[in-house]
Amino acid sequence: MPQGQPSVVPDDGLTTRQRRNRPLVMVHTGDGKGKSTAAFGLALRAWNQGWSVAVFQFVKSAKWRIGEQSALEQLAAVHRETGVGGPVEWHAMGAGWSWSRKAGTSEDHAAAAAEGWAEIKRRITAEQHDLYVLDELTYPIGWGWIDVEDVVDTLRTRPGRQHVVITGRRAHHRLVESADLVTEMTKVKHPMDVGQKGQRGIEW
Amino acid sequence: MPQGQPSVVPDDGLTTRQRRNRPLVMVHTGDGKGKSTAAFGLALRAWNQGWSVAVFQFVKSAKWRIGEQSALEQLAAVHRETGVGGPVEWHAMGAGWSWSRKAGTSEDHAAAAAEGWAEIKRRITAEQHDLYVLDELTYPIGWGWIDVEDVVDTLRTRPGRQHVVITGRRAHHRLVESADLVTEMTKVKHPMDVGQKGQRGIEW
Repeated sequence: MPQGQPSVVPDDGLTTRQRRNRPLVMVHTGDGKGKSTAAFGLALRAWNQGWSVAVFQFVKSAKWRIGEQSALEQLAAVHRETGVGGPVEWHAMGAGWSWSRKAGTSEDHAAAAAEGWAEIKRRITAEQHDLYVLDELTYPIGWGWIDVEDVVDTLRTRPGRQHVVITGRRAHHRLVESADLVTEMTKVKHPMDVGQKGQRGIEW
Repeated sequence: MPQGQPSVVPDDGLTTRQRRNRPLVMVHTGDGKGKSTAAFGLALRAWNQGWSVAVFQFVKSAKWRIGEQSALEQLAAVHRETGVGGPVEWHAMGAGWSWSRKAGTSEDHAAAAAEGWAEIKRRITAEQHDLYVLDELTYPIGWGWIDVEDVVDTLRTRPGRQHVVITGRRAHHRLVESADLVTEMTKVKHPMDVGQKGQRGIEW
């Protein structure tokens, strides 16, 4: 709830407004559901503010499009046709990063992940977007395909007003340390525990 | 990730397909961010399946529209104009429940909450929607304005294929027991801890 009051008023020389508008690095981690779903929900808020949103999916299969992709692409079309909301780009590693013909043909997942991160870094340096959804980025970091210090450093020194949300289990402790907001989604109970598989409309 | 395998294959006489398609009661609770955001993300998936989605917000102020409402109403318009996706209704108690002139003028929050629940119960009995987002329903239950046993019983005996997601802190233990899927969002770190207030596009 946005009416919340901060528990500390810092002595950092900033006005409340300046402090309020500082861009955030957010991490959704933990073994429970809702990490990516909440990140795509944030994309709805950003779209509504007219922000430029870019989603980069690092792991999900390209065999199915998740519902959020279709819905956000419809909102991107609403923006193009009526000017309402903001632009949305969706890039999926599993489908071959859309900006690169090479990546689409490669079977080398480590190279594809590194290439995805290099593109994100270029865009952050160029201040290309207002919100970056780096979906499941924790995995290629955990596997050593992307250098966590490079990620932390790029985020720490990023120019302008760019928000970043990173999702995935087992977020690296360096990522957690450097983030402004970290939420852990914990599984209390899941239908798979009682033998029910994931279903359309709920899991994707 | 939908490719997950259930850890138990139950002896319930159902096929995997029947079991897979059982409608779910989901609860997003805990003190962390993302409970409502993930529920609205689920609404995106449901919209993409062409499902009828109804959101009932029990607590949020009507003074500001959250970004998700604007975005989902745009998707509802896409559905009306092109047939893509499904219909979406958004009802906010703070704005006066839209189906009731009386509720809009009442200052009695307990009565308004009870009226909201009575309408949801009517719709569930009539199988009116495919996904119900009951945002922040845990609070009026916690305050005794809505009887938890009535909620549990209504959900347990609901007909057809209706999914329900309930959000809010301190979910009643009876609700947790009766739900199929419960996720706890835990705050690890939040900008308010270091004196930063909520901001547009991120918190609403």
